[in-house]
Amino acid sequence: MKNKVIINFCPTGMVPQKSQTPHVPISPQEIIEQTHQAYELGITIAHLHARLSNGEPTYQKNVYREIFEGVKKHCPDLIICGSSSGRNFNEFEKRSEVIELQPDMCSLTLSSLNFLQQASVNSPDMIIGLAEKMKEFGVVPELECFDLGMINVGKYLIKKGIIQGPYYWNFLFGNIAGFQAELSSIATALGEIPKDHFVSLGGLGEFQLKANALAIAFGFGVRVGIEDNLWWDSQKSRLCTNFELLKRVHQLIELNGREYFPPAELGALGFYNQKRGSVNSQNVLNHVWNI
Amino acid sequence: MKNKVIINFCPTGMVPQKSQTPHVPISPQEIIEQTHQAYELGITIAHLHARLSNGEPTYQKNVYREIFEGVKKHCPDLIICGSSSGRNFNEFEKRSEVIELQPDMCSLTLSSLNFLQQASVNSPDMIIGLAEKMKEFGVVPELECFDLGMINVGKYLIKKGIIQGPYYWNFLFGNIAGFQAELSSIATALGEIPKDHFVSLGGLGEFQLKANALAIAFGFGVRVGIEDNLWWDSQKSRLCTNFELLKRVHQLIELNGREYFPPAELGALGFYNQKRGSVNSQNVLNHVWNI
Repeated sequence: MKNKVIINFCPTGMVPQKSQTPHVPISPQEIIEQTHQAYELGITIAHLHARLSNGEPTYQKNVYREIFEGVKKHCPDLIICGSSSGRNFNEFEKRSEVIELQPDMCSLTLSSLNFLQQASVNSPDMIIGLAEKMKEFGVVPELECFDLGMINVGKYLIKKGIIQGPYYWNFLFGNIAGFQAELSSIATALGEIPKDHFVSLGGLGEFQLKANALAIAFGFGVRVGIEDNLWWDSQKSRLCTNFELLKRVHQLIELNGREYFPPAELGALGFYNQKRGSVNSQNVLNHVWNI
Repeated sequence: MKNKVIINFCPTGMVPQKSQTPHVPISPQEIIEQTHQAYELGITIAHLHARLSNGEPTYQKNVYREIFEGVKKHCPDLIICGSSSGRNFNEFEKRSEVIELQPDMCSLTLSSLNFLQQASVNSPDMIIGLAEKMKEFGVVPELECFDLGMINVGKYLIKKGIIQGPYYWNFLFGNIAGFQAELSSIATALGEIPKDHFVSLGGLGEFQLKANALAIAFGFGVRVGIEDNLWWDSQKSRLCTNFELLKRVHQLIELNGREYFPPAELGALGFYNQKRGSVNSQNVLNHVWNI
Protein backbone atom coordinates (compact mmCIF):
# COMPACT_ATOMS: atom_id res chain seq x y z
CA MET A 1 0.00 0.00 0.00
CA LYS A 2 2.84 2.38 0.89
CA ASN A 3 4.24 1.91 -2.62
CA LYS A 4 1.24 3.66 -4.06
CA VAL A 5 1.74 7.35 -4.71
CA ILE A 6 -0.58 9.75 -2.90
CA ILE A 7 -1.49 12.58 -5.26
CA ASN A 8 -2.41 15.71 -3.32
CA PHE A 9 -3.97 18.10 -5.81
CA CYS A 10 -3.66 21.82 -4.97
CA PRO A 11 -5.25 23.72 -7.84
CA THR A 12 -5.73 27.23 -6.38
CA GLY A 13 -3.90 28.34 -3.19
CA MET A 14 -4.01 31.92 -1.90
CA VAL A 15 -1.57 33.63 -4.24
CA PRO A 16 -2.05 32.93 -7.97
CA GLN A 17 -4.42 35.32 -9.72
CA LYS A 18 -6.05 35.31 -13.15
CA SER A 19 -3.78 38.22 -14.05
CA GLN A 20 -0.79 35.87 -13.64
CA THR A 21 -2.29 32.79 -15.22
CA PRO A 22 -5.67 32.23 -16.84
CA HIS A 23 -5.47 28.59 -15.74
CA VAL A 24 -5.92 29.10 -12.01
CA PRO A 25 -9.44 28.24 -10.87
CA ILE A 26 -10.97 30.97 -8.69
CA SER A 27 -14.75 30.62 -8.54
CA PRO A 28 -16.28 27.63 -6.73
CA GLN A 29 -17.53 26.41 -10.11
CA GLU A 30 -14.04 26.50 -11.63
CA ILE A 31 -12.50 24.78 -8.62
CA ILE A 32 -15.20 22.10 -8.70
CA GLU A 33 -14.75 21.53 -12.43
CA GLN A 34 -10.96 21.28 -12.35
CA THR A 35 -11.09 19.00 -9.31
CA HIS A 36 -13.62 16.78 -11.04
CA GLN A 37 -11.41 16.58 -14.12
CA ALA A 38 -8.41 15.76 -11.90
CA TYR A 39 -10.42 13.11 -10.06
CA GLU A 40 -11.23 11.38 -13.32
CA LEU A 41 -7.52 11.26 -14.16
CA GLY A 42 -6.73 10.10 -10.61
CA ILE A 43 -6.01 12.04 -7.42
CA THR A 44 -6.07 11.03 -3.76
CA ILE A 45 -6.58 14.30 -1.87
CA ALA A 46 -7.87 17.68 -3.02
CA HIS A 47 -6.25 20.52 -1.05
CA LEU A 48 -8.67 23.39 -1.59
CA HIS A 49 -8.62 27.13 -0.91
CA ALA A 50 -11.64 29.43 -1.18
CA ARG A 51 -11.59 32.73 -3.04
CA LEU A 52 -14.00 35.62 -3.41
CA SER A 53 -15.12 36.50 -6.92
CA ASN A 54 -12.45 39.23 -7.12
CA GLY A 55 -9.77 36.61 -6.53
CA GLU A 56 -9.12 37.53 -2.90
CA PRO A 57 -8.59 34.57 -0.54
CA THR A 58 -11.37 34.02 1.96
CA TYR A 59 -11.91 31.96 5.10
CA GLN A 60 -15.73 32.10 4.74
CA LYS A 61 -17.55 28.90 5.45
CA ASN A 62 -20.28 29.52 2.91
CA VAL A 63 -17.73 29.68 0.07
CA TYR A 64 -15.96 26.56 1.32
CA ARG A 65 -19.31 24.83 1.68
CA GLU A 66 -20.23 25.50 -1.93
CA ILE A 67 -16.86 24.15 -3.10
CA PHE A 68 -16.88 21.07 -0.87
CA GLU A 69 -20.46 20.13 -1.75
CA GLY A 70 -19.83 20.53 -5.45
CA VAL A 71 -16.65 18.46 -5.33
CA LYS A 72 -18.26 15.74 -3.23
CA LYS A 73 -21.17 15.50 -5.63
CA HIS A 74 -18.89 14.63 -8.54
CA CYS A 75 -16.11 12.87 -6.60
CA PRO A 76 -17.89 11.04 -3.77
CA ASP A 77 -14.89 9.20 -2.32
CA LEU A 78 -12.26 11.91 -2.75
CA ILE A 79 -10.43 13.00 0.44
CA ILE A 80 -11.12 16.71 0.85
CA CYS A 81 -8.78 19.06 2.65
CA GLY A 82 -9.54 22.70 3.55
CA SER A 83 -6.98 25.40 4.27
CA SER A 84 -6.48 26.98 7.70
CA SER A 85 -3.74 29.27 6.39
CA GLY A 86 -3.17 32.53 8.24
CA ARG A 87 -1.31 34.19 5.43
CA ASN A 88 -4.04 36.80 4.82
CA PHE A 89 -6.12 36.67 8.05
CA ASN A 90 -4.73 35.55 11.35
CA GLU A 91 -7.66 35.42 13.79
CA PHE A 92 -8.37 31.97 15.19
CA GLU A 93 -12.12 32.28 14.55
CA LYS A 94 -11.57 33.01 10.86
CA ARG A 95 -8.82 30.48 10.28
CA SER A 96 -10.74 27.72 11.99
CA GLU A 97 -14.17 28.32 10.43
CA VAL A 98 -13.57 25.77 7.69
CA ILE A 99 -12.92 23.06 10.30
CA GLU A 100 -16.58 23.28 11.36
CA LEU A 101 -17.63 21.99 7.94
CA GLN A 102 -15.91 18.73 8.89
CA PRO A 103 -13.95 18.02 5.74
CA ASP A 104 -11.66 15.01 5.97
CA MET A 105 -8.53 17.09 6.47
CA CYS A 106 -7.38 20.66 7.06
CA SER A 107 -3.93 22.10 6.61
CA LEU A 108 -1.84 22.88 9.70
CA THR A 109 1.35 24.91 9.20
CA LEU A 110 3.66 24.12 12.07
CA SER A 111 5.56 27.36 12.77
CA SER A 112 5.88 31.00 11.78
CA LEU A 113 7.91 31.65 8.66
CA ASN A 114 8.75 34.27 6.07
CA PHE A 115 7.68 34.23 2.48
CA LEU A 116 9.56 36.39 -0.03
CA GLN A 117 7.78 39.60 0.90
CA GLN A 118 5.91 38.93 4.13
CA ALA A 119 6.04 37.16 7.45
CA SER A 120 3.39 34.49 8.03
CA VAL A 121 2.71 34.15 11.73
CA ASN A 122 1.51 30.85 13.18
CA SER A 123 2.10 31.25 16.90
CA PRO A 124 2.38 28.16 19.14
CA ASP A 125 -1.03 28.94 20.67
CA MET A 126 -2.65 29.25 17.24
CA ILE A 127 -1.18 25.94 16.07
CA ILE A 128 -2.33 24.10 19.18
CA GLY A 129 -5.77 25.74 19.00
CA LEU A 130 -6.25 24.70 15.38
CA ALA A 131 -5.02 21.16 16.09
CA GLU A 132 -7.42 20.79 19.01
CA LYS A 133 -10.38 22.07 17.02
CA MET A 134 -9.51 19.63 14.22
CA LYS A 135 -9.47 16.78 16.70
CA GLU A 136 -12.85 17.86 18.09
CA PHE A 137 -14.39 17.87 14.61
CA GLY A 138 -12.76 14.64 13.44
CA VAL A 139 -10.52 16.42 10.93
CA VAL A 140 -7.11 14.87 10.16
CA PRO A 141 -4.41 17.57 10.07
CA GLU A 142 -2.35 17.92 6.92
CA LEU A 143 1.04 18.68 8.50
CA GLU A 144 2.60 21.43 6.38
CA CYS A 145 6.37 21.80 6.69
CA PHE A 146 8.55 24.41 5.01
CA ASP A 147 11.65 23.57 7.05
CA LEU A 148 13.15 21.04 9.46
CA GLY A 149 11.92 22.83 12.58
CA MET A 150 8.29 22.42 11.54
CA ILE A 151 8.81 18.67 11.40
CA ASN A 152 10.15 18.86 14.93
CA VAL A 153 7.06 20.76 16.07
CA GLY A 154 4.81 18.15 14.43
CA LYS A 155 6.61 15.35 16.24
CA TYR A 156 6.34 17.29 19.50
CA LEU A 157 2.56 17.72 19.07
CA ILE A 158 2.22 14.00 18.32
CA LYS A 159 4.26 13.12 21.42
CA LYS A 160 2.02 15.35 23.51
CA GLY A 161 -1.12 13.70 22.10
CA ILE A 162 -2.35 16.99 20.64
CA ILE A 163 -2.24 15.39 17.20
CA GLN A 164 -3.39 11.81 16.79
CA GLY A 165 -3.00 9.47 13.84
CA PRO A 166 -3.29 8.79 11.01
CA TYR A 167 -0.37 11.03 10.09
CA TYR A 168 0.13 12.81 6.80
CA TRP A 169 2.90 15.33 6.07
CA ASN A 170 3.38 17.78 3.21
CA PHE A 171 6.96 18.96 2.69
CA LEU A 172 7.20 22.12 0.61
CA PHE A 173 10.66 22.85 -0.73
CA GLY A 174 11.97 26.06 -2.23
CA ASN A 175 10.38 28.86 -0.21
CA ILE A 176 13.07 31.51 0.30
CA ALA A 177 13.12 31.08 4.08
CA GLY A 178 12.57 27.32 4.03
CA PHE A 179 14.43 24.22 3.04
CA GLN A 180 15.41 23.97 -0.61
CA ALA A 181 14.93 21.05 -3.01
CA GLU A 182 18.48 19.82 -2.45
CA LEU A 183 19.17 16.17 -1.86
CA SER A 184 20.79 16.58 1.54
CA SER A 185 17.88 18.67 2.84
CA ILE A 186 15.27 16.30 1.44
CA ALA A 187 17.10 13.29 2.87
CA THR A 188 17.42 14.93 6.28
CA ALA A 189 13.75 15.88 6.29
CA LEU A 190 12.52 12.42 5.24
CA GLY A 191 14.83 10.80 7.79
CA GLU A 192 12.78 12.46 10.55
CA ILE A 193 9.51 10.78 9.61
CA PRO A 194 8.49 7.38 11.01
CA LYS A 195 7.96 4.69 8.39
CA ASP A 196 4.24 4.31 9.06
CA HIS A 197 3.46 7.99 8.36
CA PHE A 198 2.50 9.27 4.92
CA VAL A 199 4.50 12.06 3.26
CA SER A 200 3.99 14.04 0.08
CA LEU A 201 6.73 16.17 -1.44
CA GLY A 202 5.98 19.43 -3.20
CA GLY A 203 7.91 22.49 -4.14
CA LEU A 204 7.47 26.12 -5.03
CA GLY A 205 7.91 27.13 -8.65
CA GLU A 206 10.46 25.05 -10.48
CA PHE A 207 11.05 22.98 -7.34
CA GLN A 208 7.66 21.29 -7.74
CA LEU A 209 8.80 19.01 -10.55
CA LYS A 210 12.07 18.14 -8.81
CA ALA A 211 10.27 17.26 -5.59
CA ASN A 212 7.52 15.32 -7.39
CA ALA A 213 9.97 13.33 -9.53
CA LEU A 214 12.11 12.39 -6.55
CA ALA A 215 9.04 11.44 -4.52
CA ILE A 216 7.71 9.17 -7.25
CA ALA A 217 11.10 7.53 -7.78
CA PHE A 218 11.46 6.77 -4.08
CA GLY A 219 7.84 5.88 -3.30
CA PHE A 220 6.57 8.97 -1.49
CA GLY A 221 3.48 11.02 -2.29
CA VAL A 222 3.33 14.22 -4.32
CA ARG A 223 1.68 17.60 -3.86
CA VAL A 224 1.03 19.10 -7.27
CA GLY A 225 -0.85 22.03 -8.77
CA ILE A 226 -0.96 25.69 -9.68
CA GLU A 227 -1.11 26.72 -5.99
CA ASP A 228 2.67 26.24 -5.88
CA ASN A 229 3.74 26.55 -9.48
CA LEU A 230 2.47 28.50 -12.49
CA TRP A 231 4.93 27.27 -15.11
CA TRP A 232 5.34 24.16 -17.19
CA ASP A 233 9.15 24.21 -17.16
CA SER A 234 12.06 25.81 -15.33
CA GLN A 235 12.68 28.11 -18.30
CA LYS A 236 9.17 29.48 -17.75
CA SER A 237 8.55 29.07 -21.44
CA ARG A 238 4.82 28.73 -20.90
CA LEU A 239 2.13 28.69 -18.23
CA CYS A 240 0.71 25.31 -17.32
CA THR A 241 -2.70 23.92 -16.50
CA ASN A 242 -3.47 21.83 -13.46
CA PHE A 243 -4.47 19.00 -15.75
CA GLU A 244 -1.09 19.00 -17.54
CA LEU A 245 0.82 18.96 -14.25
CA LEU A 246 -1.25 16.01 -13.10
CA LYS A 247 -0.82 14.18 -16.36
CA ARG A 248 2.96 14.47 -16.07
CA VAL A 249 2.78 13.08 -12.56
CA HIS A 250 0.79 10.10 -13.84
CA GLN A 251 3.33 9.53 -16.59
CA LEU A 252 6.15 9.58 -14.02
CA ILE A 253 4.24 7.14 -11.85
CA GLU A 254 3.88 4.76 -14.78
CA LEU A 255 7.52 5.10 -15.87
CA ASN A 256 8.68 4.37 -12.33
CA GLY A 257 6.56 1.24 -12.20
CA ARG A 258 4.25 2.53 -9.49
CA GLU A 259 0.53 3.16 -9.10
CA TYR A 260 -1.41 6.07 -7.71
CA PHE A 261 -3.15 5.79 -4.36
CA PRO A 262 -6.94 5.70 -4.89
CA PRO A 263 -8.77 7.92 -2.38
CA ALA A 264 -10.98 5.14 -1.03
CA GLU A 265 -7.91 3.11 -0.07
CA LEU A 266 -6.29 5.97 1.82
CA GLY A 267 -9.63 7.03 3.29
CA ALA A 268 -10.10 3.52 4.67
CA LEU A 269 -6.89 3.97 6.67
CA GLY A 270 -8.55 6.61 8.84
CA PHE A 271 -8.29 9.64 6.57
CA TYR A 272 -12.02 10.08 6.11
CA ASN A 273 -13.56 12.24 8.81
CA GLN A 274 -14.57 9.71 11.47
CA LYS A 275 -16.80 12.09 13.37
CA ARG A 276 -18.95 13.41 10.59
CA GLY A 277 -22.49 13.54 11.84
CA SER A 278 -21.53 12.81 15.44
CA VAL A 279 -20.37 16.29 16.40
CA ASN A 280 -23.02 18.76 17.39
CA SER A 281 -22.15 21.24 14.69
CA GLN A 282 -23.41 22.81 11.52
CA ASN A 283 -22.86 19.56 9.80
CA VAL A 284 -24.05 20.62 6.39
CA LEU A 285 -22.00 18.11 4.51
CA ASN A 286 -23.47 15.08 6.11
CA HIS A 287 -26.12 14.48 3.48
CA VAL A 288 -23.62 14.20 0.68
CA TRP A 289 -20.68 12.82 2.63
CA ASN A 290 -22.48 10.01 4.32
CA ILE A 291 -21.48 7.63 1.56
CA MET B 1 43.89 30.55 10.65
CA LYS B 2 40.61 28.71 9.99
CA ASN B 3 41.75 25.93 12.32
CA LYS B 4 41.53 28.31 15.23
CA VAL B 5 38.27 28.12 17.15
CA ILE B 6 36.21 31.31 17.34
CA ILE B 7 34.67 31.59 20.80
CA ASN B 8 31.52 33.68 20.72
CA PHE B 9 30.63 34.42 24.34
CA CYS B 10 26.91 35.03 25.05
CA PRO B 11 26.59 35.55 28.80
CA THR B 12 23.11 37.11 29.14
CA GLY B 13 20.55 36.94 26.30
CA MET B 14 16.96 38.11 26.70
CA VAL B 15 15.44 35.22 28.61
CA PRO B 16 17.41 34.00 31.67
CA GLN B 17 16.51 35.76 34.91
CA LYS B 18 18.11 35.80 38.35
CA SER B 19 15.10 33.82 39.59
CA GLN B 20 16.21 30.96 37.31
CA THR B 21 19.93 31.20 37.87
CA PRO B 22 21.96 33.49 40.12
CA HIS B 23 24.81 33.22 37.62
CA VAL B 24 23.29 35.24 34.77
CA PRO B 25 24.76 38.77 34.60
CA ILE B 26 22.05 41.43 34.35
CA SER B 27 23.44 44.83 35.29
CA PRO B 28 26.00 46.50 33.03
CA GLN B 29 28.56 46.05 35.80
CA GLU B 30 27.92 42.30 36.03
CA ILE B 31 28.05 41.91 32.24
CA ILE B 32 31.30 43.89 32.09
CA GLU B 33 32.88 41.88 34.88
CA GLN B 34 31.94 38.46 33.48
CA THR B 35 33.05 39.48 29.99
CA HIS B 36 36.35 40.73 31.37
CA GLN B 37 36.87 37.44 33.21
CA ALA B 38 36.01 35.55 30.03
CA TYR B 39 38.39 37.70 28.00
CA GLU B 40 41.24 36.83 30.32
CA LEU B 41 40.51 33.13 29.79
CA GLY B 42 40.18 33.71 26.04
CA ILE B 43 37.21 34.66 23.89
CA THR B 44 36.96 36.08 20.35
CA ILE B 45 33.57 37.81 20.25
CA ALA B 46 31.28 39.00 23.04
CA HIS B 47 27.61 38.78 22.01
CA LEU B 48 25.90 41.15 24.43
CA HIS B 49 22.31 41.95 25.38
CA ALA B 50 21.24 44.89 27.54
CA ARG B 51 18.84 44.58 30.45
CA LEU B 52 17.07 47.02 32.73
CA SER B 53 17.74 46.71 36.45
CA ASN B 54 14.54 44.64 36.89
CA GLY B 55 15.93 42.09 34.45
CA GLU B 56 13.73 43.12 31.52
CA PRO B 57 15.48 43.18 28.11
CA THR B 58 16.00 46.64 26.66
CA TYR B 59 17.02 48.12 23.31
CA GLN B 60 18.14 51.40 24.91
CA LYS B 61 21.33 52.87 23.57
CA ASN B 62 22.40 54.36 26.87
CA VAL B 63 22.41 50.93 28.54
CA TYR B 64 24.28 49.38 25.62
CA ARG B 65 26.72 52.29 25.68
CA GLU B 66 27.56 51.71 29.33
CA ILE B 67 28.14 48.00 28.69
CA PHE B 68 30.20 48.49 25.52
CA GLU B 69 32.39 51.19 27.04
CA GLY B 70 33.04 49.16 30.18
CA VAL B 71 33.91 46.05 28.18
CA LYS B 72 36.16 47.94 25.79
CA LYS B 73 38.00 49.55 28.68
CA HIS B 74 39.05 46.17 30.06
CA CYS B 75 39.19 44.21 26.78
CA PRO B 76 40.43 46.69 24.19
CA ASP B 77 40.76 44.32 21.24
CA LEU B 78 37.66 42.18 21.87
CA ILE B 79 35.13 42.02 19.01
CA ILE B 80 31.87 43.36 20.38
CA CYS B 81 28.46 42.35 19.07
CA GLY B 82 25.14 43.96 20.05
CA SER B 83 21.72 42.37 19.71
CA SER B 84 19.05 43.56 17.28
CA SER B 85 16.60 40.91 18.46
CA GLY B 86 12.90 41.63 18.04
CA ARG B 87 11.76 39.04 20.52
CA ASN B 88 10.43 41.63 22.99
CA PHE B 89 10.12 44.79 20.85
CA ASN B 90 9.65 44.76 17.14
CA GLU B 91 9.85 48.38 15.95
CA PHE B 92 12.71 49.09 13.57
CA GLU B 93 13.76 52.23 15.45
CA LYS B 94 14.14 50.33 18.71
CA ARG B 95 15.77 47.25 17.28
CA SER B 96 18.28 49.26 15.30
CA GLU B 97 19.25 51.79 18.01
CA VAL B 98 22.23 49.73 19.08
CA ILE B 99 23.65 49.83 15.54
CA GLU B 100 24.19 53.59 15.91
CA LEU B 101 26.76 52.93 18.63
CA GLN B 102 28.87 51.29 15.92
CA PRO B 103 29.94 48.13 17.67
CA ASP B 104 31.91 45.71 15.51
CA MET B 105 28.96 43.43 14.91
CA CYS B 106 25.22 43.16 15.51
CA SER B 107 23.03 40.08 15.38
CA LEU B 108 20.72 39.61 12.39
CA THR B 109 18.12 36.83 12.62
CA LEU B 110 17.22 35.80 9.11
CA SER B 111 13.52 34.86 9.23
CA SER B 112 10.48 34.71 11.47
CA LEU B 113 10.30 31.70 13.75
CA ASN B 114 8.52 30.26 16.75
CA PHE B 115 10.05 29.74 20.15
CA LEU B 116 8.35 27.33 22.56
CA GLN B 117 5.68 29.79 23.66
CA GLN B 118 5.80 32.70 21.26
CA ALA B 119 6.28 33.70 17.66
CA SER B 120 9.29 35.94 16.92
CA VAL B 121 8.59 38.01 13.84
CA ASN B 122 11.44 39.19 11.62
CA SER B 123 9.71 40.25 8.42
CA PRO B 124 11.68 40.46 5.14
CA ASP B 125 11.49 44.29 5.28
CA MET B 126 12.81 44.37 8.83
CA ILE B 127 15.72 42.07 8.01
CA ILE B 128 16.72 44.12 4.96
CA GLY B 129 16.32 47.39 6.92
CA LEU B 130 18.56 46.17 9.72
CA ALA B 131 21.16 44.84 7.25
CA GLU B 132 21.26 48.15 5.40
CA LYS B 133 21.62 50.17 8.58
CA MET B 134 24.46 47.88 9.68
CA LYS B 135 26.22 48.44 6.37
CA GLU B 136 25.79 52.20 6.73
CA PHE B 137 27.36 52.16 10.20
CA GLY B 138 30.17 49.73 9.36
CA VAL B 139 28.70 46.95 11.50
CA VAL B 140 29.34 43.34 10.42
CA PRO B 141 26.13 41.27 10.72
CA GLU B 142 26.22 38.18 12.87
CA LEU B 143 24.03 35.89 10.75
CA GLU B 144 21.78 34.02 13.17
CA CYS B 145 20.23 30.81 11.86
CA PHE B 146 17.78 28.54 13.65
CA ASP B 147 16.96 26.47 10.58
CA LEU B 148 18.00 25.73 7.00
CA GLY B 149 15.77 28.39 5.47
CA MET B 150 17.54 31.17 7.35
CA ILE B 151 20.81 30.08 5.77
CA ASN B 152 19.12 30.36 2.40
CA VAL B 153 17.94 33.89 3.21
CA GLY B 154 21.48 34.87 4.27
CA LYS B 155 22.88 33.58 1.00
CA TYR B 156 20.17 35.45 -0.91
CA LEU B 157 21.04 38.74 0.85
CA ILE B 158 24.73 38.17 0.08
CA LYS B 159 23.92 37.48 -3.58
CA LYS B 160 21.89 40.70 -3.72
CA GLY B 161 24.78 42.69 -2.18
CA ILE B 162 22.64 43.69 0.81
CA ILE B 163 25.16 41.94 3.04
CA GLN B 164 28.85 42.27 2.30
CA GLY B 165 31.80 40.36 3.74
CA PRO B 166 33.40 39.36 5.94
CA TYR B 167 30.82 36.67 6.70
CA TYR B 168 30.12 35.15 10.08
CA TRP B 169 27.27 32.72 10.84
CA ASN B 170 25.85 31.46 14.13
CA PHE B 171 23.91 28.22 13.91
CA LEU B 172 21.66 27.61 16.91
CA PHE B 173 20.39 24.06 17.24
CA GLY B 174 17.61 22.74 19.43
CA ASN B 175 14.92 25.41 19.35
CA ILE B 176 11.59 23.58 19.16
CA ALA B 177 10.73 25.04 15.73
CA GLY B 178 14.29 24.96 14.40
CA PHE B 179 16.86 22.40 13.36
CA GLN B 180 17.96 19.99 16.06
CA ALA B 181 21.49 19.00 17.06
CA GLU B 182 21.37 15.85 14.93
CA LEU B 183 24.26 14.92 12.71
CA SER B 184 22.31 14.93 9.45
CA SER B 185 20.87 18.40 10.15
CA ILE B 186 24.23 19.83 11.20
CA ALA B 187 25.95 18.32 8.15
CA THR B 188 23.27 19.68 5.82
CA ALA B 189 23.50 23.14 7.39
CA LEU B 190 27.31 23.27 7.26
CA GLY B 191 27.27 22.02 3.67
CA GLU B 192 25.48 25.24 2.66
CA ILE B 193 28.27 27.55 3.82
CA PRO B 194 31.19 28.54 1.57
CA LYS B 195 34.60 27.54 2.87
CA ASP B 196 35.82 31.11 3.35
CA HIS B 197 32.97 32.07 5.70
CA PHE B 198 33.22 31.70 9.46
CA VAL B 199 30.66 29.64 11.38
CA SER B 200 30.04 29.07 15.07
CA LEU B 201 27.80 26.30 16.36
CA GLY B 202 25.66 26.75 19.45
CA GLY B 203 22.62 25.07 20.90
CA LEU B 204 19.78 25.64 23.28
CA GLY B 205 19.91 23.91 26.65
CA GLU B 206 21.61 20.54 26.52
CA PHE B 207 22.29 20.99 22.80
CA GLN B 208 24.94 23.63 23.55
CA LEU B 209 27.55 21.12 24.64
CA LYS B 210 26.81 18.75 21.74
CA ALA B 211 27.11 21.57 19.21
CA ASN B 212 30.23 23.00 20.83
CA ALA B 213 31.99 19.63 21.06
CA LEU B 214 31.24 18.79 17.42
CA ALA B 215 32.36 22.25 16.29
CA ILE B 216 35.67 21.99 18.11
CA ALA B 217 36.31 18.46 16.81
CA PHE B 218 35.70 19.56 13.21
CA GLY B 219 37.31 23.00 13.34
CA PHE B 220 34.34 25.34 13.51
CA GLY B 221 33.67 28.10 16.03
CA VAL B 222 31.48 27.89 19.11
CA ARG B 223 28.79 30.05 20.65
CA VAL B 224 28.72 29.46 24.38
CA GLY B 225 27.13 30.97 27.47
CA ILE B 226 24.16 31.24 29.77
CA GLU B 227 22.09 33.04 27.10
CA ASP B 228 21.37 29.61 25.59
CA ASN B 229 21.92 27.22 28.45
CA LEU B 230 21.50 27.41 32.23
CA TRP B 231 22.72 23.95 33.16
CA TRP B 232 26.06 22.23 33.50
CA ASP B 233 24.87 18.83 32.29
CA SER B 234 22.00 17.21 30.44
CA GLN B 235 20.70 15.77 33.74
CA LYS B 236 20.33 19.36 34.97
CA SER B 237 22.07 18.34 38.15
CA ARG B 238 23.32 21.87 38.74
CA LEU B 239 23.26 25.38 37.32
CA CYS B 240 26.44 26.52 35.61
CA THR B 241 28.44 29.73 35.44
CA ASN B 242 29.57 31.36 32.23
CA PHE B 243 33.17 30.89 33.34
CA GLU B 244 32.75 27.12 33.79
CA LEU B 245 31.15 26.75 30.35
CA LEU B 246 34.03 28.64 28.82
CA LYS B 247 36.61 26.63 30.71
CA ARG B 248 35.15 23.39 29.36
CA VAL B 249 35.31 24.81 25.85
CA HIS B 250 38.99 25.62 26.36
CA GLN B 251 39.64 22.10 27.65
CA LEU B 252 37.93 20.64 24.58
CA ILE B 253 40.00 22.89 22.33
CA GLU B 254 43.17 21.64 23.98
CA LEU B 255 42.15 17.98 23.87
CA ASN B 256 41.31 18.30 20.17
CA GLY B 257 44.74 19.78 19.46
CA ARG B 258 43.38 23.17 18.43
CA GLU B 259 43.80 26.78 19.55
CA TYR B 260 41.30 29.52 20.19
CA PHE B 261 40.99 32.43 17.78
CA PRO B 262 42.36 35.61 19.42
CA PRO B 263 40.10 38.61 18.78
CA ALA B 264 42.83 40.75 17.21
CA GLU B 265 43.44 38.08 14.55
CA LEU B 266 39.78 37.84 13.60
CA GLY B 267 39.36 41.60 13.87
CA ALA B 268 42.19 42.07 11.39
CA LEU B 269 40.19 40.08 8.83
CA GLY B 270 37.62 42.85 8.62
CA PHE B 271 35.54 42.14 11.69
CA TYR B 272 36.40 45.37 13.49
CA ASN B 273 34.05 48.18 12.57
CA GLN B 274 35.77 49.81 9.60
CA LYS B 275 33.67 52.97 9.65
CA ARG B 276 34.03 53.94 13.26
CA GLY B 277 34.60 57.64 13.40
CA SER B 278 33.80 58.15 9.73
CA VAL B 279 30.01 58.03 9.98
CA ASN B 280 28.27 61.19 11.02
CA SER B 281 26.68 59.64 14.07
CA GLN B 282 26.66 59.67 17.83
CA ASN B 283 29.95 57.96 17.80
CA VAL B 284 30.48 57.77 21.51
CA LEU B 285 32.71 54.76 21.42
CA ASN B 286 35.39 56.30 19.31
CA HIS B 287 37.56 57.48 22.15
CA VAL B 288 38.01 54.02 23.59
CA TRP B 289 37.74 52.01 20.39
CA ASN B 290 40.26 53.92 18.40
CA ILE B 291 42.99 51.51 19.36
